[in-house]
Amino acid sequence: MTIPSTKELLQTMQEAAENLSKNDRRDFLRKGVSYLAGAAAVGSAGAASGASFSTNLPPNEPIWGRQLGSGVVANPYGEPSHFEEHVVRRTVPWLTAESISSISMSPIQNLQGIITPNGLVFERYHAGVPSINPDEHRLMIHGLVDNPLIFTMEDLMRFPSVSEIKFIECPANGGMEWRGPQMEALQFTHGMLSCCEWTGVPLKVLLEEAGIQPEGKWILAEGADGAHMSRSIPIEKILDDTLVVYAQNGEMLRPEQGYPLRLLNPGWEGNTSIKWLRRIEVGDMPWHHREETSKYTDLMADGRARRFTFVQECNSVITSPCPENPIKKPGFIEIEGLAWTGRGKIKGVDVSFDGGVNWQPAQLKGLVLDKALTRFSFQTKWSGQPWLLQSRAYDETGYVQPTLAQLREQRGVNSIYHKNSIHTWQVQPTGEVKNVQVT
Amino acid sequence: MTIPSTKELLQTMQEAAENLSKNDRRDFLRKGVSYLAGAAAVGSAGAASGASFSTNLPPNEPIWGRQLGSGVVANPYGEPSHFEEHVVRRTVPWLTAESISSISMSPIQNLQGIITPNGLVFERYHAGVPSINPDEHRLMIHGLVDNPLIFTMEDLMRFPSVSEIKFIECPANGGMEWRGPQMEALQFTHGMLSCCEWTGVPLKVLLEEAGIQPEGKWILAEGADGAHMSRSIPIEKILDDTLVVYAQNGEMLRPEQGYPLRLLNPGWEGNTSIKWLRRIEVGDMPWHHREETSKYTDLMADGRARRFTFVQECNSVITSPCPENPIKKPGFIEIEGLAWTGRGKIKGVDVSFDGGVNWQPAQLKGLVLDKALTRFSFQTKWSGQPWLLQSRAYDETGYVQPTLAQLREQRGVNSIYHKNSIHTWQVQPTGEVKNVQVT
Repeated sequence: MTIPSTKELLQTMQEAAENLSKNDRRDFLRKGVSYLAGAAAVGSAGAASGASFSTNLPPNEPIWGRQLGSGVVANPYGEPSHFEEHVVRRTVPWLTAESISSISMSPIQNLQGIITPNGLVFERYHAGVPSINPDEHRLMIHGLVDNPLIFTMEDLMRFPSVSEIKFIECPANGGMEWRGPQMEALQFTHGMLSCCEWTGVPLKVLLEEAGIQPEGKWILAEGADGAHMSRSIPIEKILDDTLVVYAQNGEMLRPEQGYPLRLLNPGWEGNTSIKWLRRIEVGDMPWHHREETSKYTDLMADGRARRFTFVQECNSVITSPCPENPIKKPGFIEIEGLAWTGRGKIKGVDVSFDGGVNWQPAQLKGLVLDKALTRFSFQTKWSGQPWLLQSRAYDETGYVQPTLAQLREQRGVNSIYHKNSIHTWQVQPTGEVKNVQVT
Repeated sequence: MTIPSTKELLQTMQEAAENLSKNDRRDFLRKGVSYLAGAAAVGSAGAASGASFSTNLPPNEPIWGRQLGSGVVANPYGEPSHFEEHVVRRTVPWLTAESISSISMSPIQNLQGIITPNGLVFERYHAGVPSINPDEHRLMIHGLVDNPLIFTMEDLMRFPSVSEIKFIECPANGGMEWRGPQMEALQFTHGMLSCCEWTGVPLKVLLEEAGIQPEGKWILAEGADGAHMSRSIPIEKILDDTLVVYAQNGEMLRPEQGYPLRLLNPGWEGNTSIKWLRRIEVGDMPWHHREETSKYTDLMADGRARRFTFVQECNSVITSPCPENPIKKPGFIEIEGLAWTGRGKIKGVDVSFDGGVNWQPAQLKGLVLDKALTRFSFQTKWSGQPWLLQSRAYDETGYVQPTLAQLREQRGVNSIYHKNSIHTWQVQPTGEVKNVQVT
């Protein structure tokens, strides 16, 4: 990596070091002296150093350095620190009438890297989270197949498995903002988005065992929950990369993610990745069920509706700064964000500071994987000037993330789904960040 | 991927399908009929199909399909299904006298892919898990540097971050077995091993800000917990890839993993990746502290001890089958396992069925990353014959995982640490799996 000039960043730390008295400083620098004692400014950093430990702990030794912590047995399945209690999925109370048919959003403003920990993966369900006994759960494959089949979980887990890091996104992500900015938090503008390592069996392997008949062109996937959510998927997607998934980030699926079994259509509308999967039917045409007619369609300006708009097109957002992560002081800043595309790999991301007039290339960092979240970074300095911060991603197919104006021109403002336009954060001279619209 | 012949696997499912009466079968195959009713064999797979839903649910509809589940608000930070309560970290009660200075091991027999979820990452600490307030935590860098520095967490998190998937392993992993097989479970033979996406700042970036003086050749890293665990690390490692880490798998470090800050020396003994990191001192030689003299050294046959044996050498183990995952029936089987090396990337893994006489190459699957867990797979058939199953990994440096005999010849049987020899599972005609030793 390139090392930025971060002298500004160090000012505060230098000041803290200055606060040490000269005597303290001498002790501080002389190797072998036991304690950096008495200097309030060094607080918890005061520590035994050099070759020998003393049992006389200094008065500024923090409490956690002077006592034993909690033991290993008490905590068989780990939890986050209670200091991180604010890092949770959140709902928008007015968005849905009932909690059993609602959404909770990932705190992507607090997340690092590309993996979303299982406890923070966004939720969307239509009849609450069922509690399914995996020993009793079955997956049936039937319809236009030579051999209808019924699988137990044990059957499925005997097949050779594959593990892949893929994002999953609700097509309604950002959907509240077709007519203009409405949500004052990144968690609510873009939090219906997560990325895990998923493990399962390619659905095509199971369908080859069943034997798809020549007329079989679509499948219907159906859930075992009270909503029996179902979607029609064209066979081309199945033969490409659809998985029948039982694990996420190493462990079995979480209940709200479809335990014990779900579909995963990488890069496609999250709702097509049917959770609590119990049935795959092969047919010769789509089923036109509720969740692909009255819901999950895109009402255009002329009153017609786009249907079967499966792909989550290329999108990106800056996660730091953002409304929840204001800029706290002038100086060096790493502008960071996430980019993703349902069509493959992210090729690049540009960043603008003036609402899209001028653009500069950001750096992709870490793993750049097919249909996975990809981090980008732009290192610069902030001196208190106002910014209209934007990111614009493009993918390996050449697709470039559109402006909101471009998207509206094509699709009007009646849609809920597939709003992947360039997002704007207004950075104010105070460092606060607002969700604004640039026309 | 290559598709195996899995006809055998399908027998049970076919039998279940045979159990359907002819009438049921007719319904089953005829598209548009509402229910696959009455067939006990299909259980929870019985479902509405075709173009219309009925409100008359069939008697064999499982309970979770007939009622609403739990809503979205009740569960802000997610937990595993209660059906997965057996998937937890476990301790060996006799291994340590006190739980505050003990070990818990990851249930690697239950894990998929390469990511270990945060709640299951193995634990090792020397004075219990401290509860550290991140606002009060400091990292001090001092010693042979031009500018001693004190960092708050906020300071550290303003630096450009990197995120990397790396394994972490206690050098005592497998250490109970130098004299022969002792543990009857994979979780206890190899469970001091996990792999996460870690996010933090390269330590070299922080040290460049401090300015290492020419005599600075080693650092001492020290924890803020009651044990003030400390290790000496040569500067070459720091300049290569050591990170100061604050997040794992996207979220802030778990308390038992060093919250809010730890060191990460990728590929090296887990104990060098000091948790609850509060102090980095630069010196001209190692400190010879307790955890690198009386502990974490390797007692040889001649009474001398190897010291500063930092690297976790190339290792591997078969995770399925294993004592916790016996073979349940003859037929197709995917033999799966994990390989890892502290020297870089895994190059390949061979599998033996006869205790190391003959070897066949396994397939690496999924991501093959530097100093990360790597999955391997070998697809075959089991007909009830006894097996002496082994895996042998080699890495990109040419290092080949040794036999236990080779390891003992060099290192005797007094060691606790760095036992990376080829492991043997005995598969019995019942399908049960035993931990055995092949001489």
